[in-house]
Amino acid sequence: MYPDSFEGFAVTDTKNWSTVSKIEFKPKPFGEYDVDIRIHACGICGSDVHTVSGGWGQPDLPVIAGHEIIGEAVRVGDKVTTVKKGQRVGVGAQIWSCLKCDVCKANLENYCPHMVDTYNSNYPDGSKAWGGYSSHIRAHEYFVFPIPDALKTEDVAPMLCAGTTTYSPLVDNGCGPGKKVAVIGIGGLGHFAIMFAKALGAEVCAFSRSSKKAEDAKKLGASEFVATGEDPDWPSKHQREFDLIISSSSSVENFDLDGYLGCLKVKGKFVFVGIPEDPLEVKLPTLNQSAISFSATHLGNRQQILSMLKLAAEKGLKAWTECLPISEENIKQALERTHSHDVRFRFVLTDYDKKFGSED
Amino acid sequence: MYPDSFEGFAVTDTKNWSTVSKIEFKPKPFGEYDVDIRIHACGICGSDVHTVSGGWGQPDLPVIAGHEIIGEAVRVGDKVTTVKKGQRVGVGAQIWSCLKCDVCKANLENYCPHMVDTYNSNYPDGSKAWGGYSSHIRAHEYFVFPIPDALKTEDVAPMLCAGTTTYSPLVDNGCGPGKKVAVIGIGGLGHFAIMFAKALGAEVCAFSRSSKKAEDAKKLGASEFVATGEDPDWPSKHQREFDLIISSSSSVENFDLDGYLGCLKVKGKFVFVGIPEDPLEVKLPTLNQSAISFSATHLGNRQQILSMLKLAAEKGLKAWTECLPISEENIKQALERTHSHDVRFRFVLTDYDKKFGSED
Repeated sequence: MYPDSFEGFAVTDTKNWSTVSKIEFKPKPFGEYDVDIRIHACGICGSDVHTVSGGWGQPDLPVIAGHEIIGEAVRVGDKVTTVKKGQRVGVGAQIWSCLKCDVCKANLENYCPHMVDTYNSNYPDGSKAWGGYSSHIRAHEYFVFPIPDALKTEDVAPMLCAGTTTYSPLVDNGCGPGKKVAVIGIGGLGHFAIMFAKALGAEVCAFSRSSKKAEDAKKLGASEFVATGEDPDWPSKHQREFDLIISSSSSVENFDLDGYLGCLKVKGKFVFVGIPEDPLEVKLPTLNQSAISFSATHLGNRQQILSMLKLAAEKGLKAWTECLPISEENIKQALERTHSHDVRFRFVLTDYDKKFGSED
Repeated sequence: MYPDSFEGFAVTDTKNWSTVSKIEFKPKPFGEYDVDIRIHACGICGSDVHTVSGGWGQPDLPVIAGHEIIGEAVRVGDKVTTVKKGQRVGVGAQIWSCLKCDVCKANLENYCPHMVDTYNSNYPDGSKAWGGYSSHIRAHEYFVFPIPDALKTEDVAPMLCAGTTTYSPLVDNGCGPGKKVAVIGIGGLGHFAIMFAKALGAEVCAFSRSSKKAEDAKKLGASEFVATGEDPDWPSKHQREFDLIISSSSSVENFDLDGYLGCLKVKGKFVFVGIPEDPLEVKLPTLNQSAISFSATHLGNRQQILSMLKLAAEKGLKAWTECLPISEENIKQALERTHSHDVRFRFVLTDYDKKFGSED
């Protein structure tokens, strides 16, 4: 029981990756910059499925997944200055970095070579990191983000990972008024990319394989929609049109990279935020004809997460979610349906108090 | 005879791509912004070989190659303001662009969708463009560059293509004091990349397959040299070391892209200036771990060519060349030895007056 131990729902076998069981676990030792959070809600990210199923390599079992966490700060370390006890806060997919190296000092802590992921990861002292399908989480204050009052807990949870993963490359690549941005794929990541690109002032075009999500794309803020599977001429119709393309595609199968690259303006940028497991073939003459650059990014930094939350509060942005009270059955359903992309667009686990109690 | 027609050495058969014969040809009609140049010297570029051998597709035969041209302006159009008759000038790999579209207006004329290459290309009116293995060339003044007095004709010719191809991505990616730049491949392109990166103030490391060119690399300005074929541990030794990597490699065979990408700092840039004909496999997790971006570029713009020439004049930089008087035999030798990378590092055809006369 808290504060000695926390409870959570763990996967214990990658073959039965959607089956969780309740376990008790010891968090890392409490440090003077740490915050303990009683969790209220947690989004289900595609990474959770990749990790517990072994798609990204054998995990360190048991694993408690979940890194789109909102809760209440119930204890703060003596040196904590950015979070107050009782405050509503969020935690994303990164729980720690050294904050000392050149990378961290350049505000690129999301690429720190010593970074610790929120789950299936270990601190330098060997302590294991446990995710948000749990009663509580312990985190360094630098990775704990105060949540603006205007945002509801369920609406904001998925922003802590999927939101920042798309917001960061948008702002890093100058998304704003006068810019044309294309978003490939409309799901957990893609729906945020459309929403944020529009909120930042760009004109947004959404690409999807079929026209099933055309209406959703418009509601999210896209002024144009392309169903690539239904119009073979899309590459020529959109030649040299976009300043930036954000791809949330998680697979390279039938992915016409060359076609998309041709849709970029000279010096245009193509950024992968979904990270397909297979390698991708790139034709250099296509890049070279328009000096296109091609990259892939990982999460965002603290400043970007705070500015994303501010933007969401100001513009009334919310994740499109399907909420499920946390339980063995509902985690199973959510993991399996996330795996088969059967969610519009993010599951959020709720009602933590009913499962874990509301006493600290 | 000039001014009605020009003479040059043409390839007439891709199967006999190193055999040239002297032909007479009609240049495009003289326009009011045009400059006629009596050619004094021309470098032999790898592109010449790719083009005349059909490696980049069937050329429009006969082809007169050559796009590293230095000569004397012998006639200038009525509206020409940047070149005077009698002035020594250069022409590179681009002979025309529309100068009206958004791309041109953004000083990116080297990516203009209407651009005309210096040879094996056609103007909008259908006139054919002929390269620098010729008595004369006719060019719009925007693509004609006054040559600083400090630079010798033979030393500067290869800068007009190979020089600007490497200089442009260096300056576009912030090469300068405090930056670490790696150059892959030491040849026509690579030797300029090392020289210019050093001249711009960066610390330069040269990568080559063997250690044969180690001494040359140091002389060119590299402070470090890596023979990738002789030290299998190079990727771990240089992890996250460089801000920028310029690759002049023209082949993807045994090219350890993943190893090189791991040598980049967070947010590092990898730029291909040599354009291999085959596609390249990119592993997205490698890009994503450090937010690396990956691109390929084509030539440079007018402003960059002028600043490159100024830098070369100020710092006394010169191409490393092997000069051959222009003739059927010497063009054959130069094309064949360029094809087999048997040159340190650029052939320059000279003594044009002996072959074509010196009367306009």
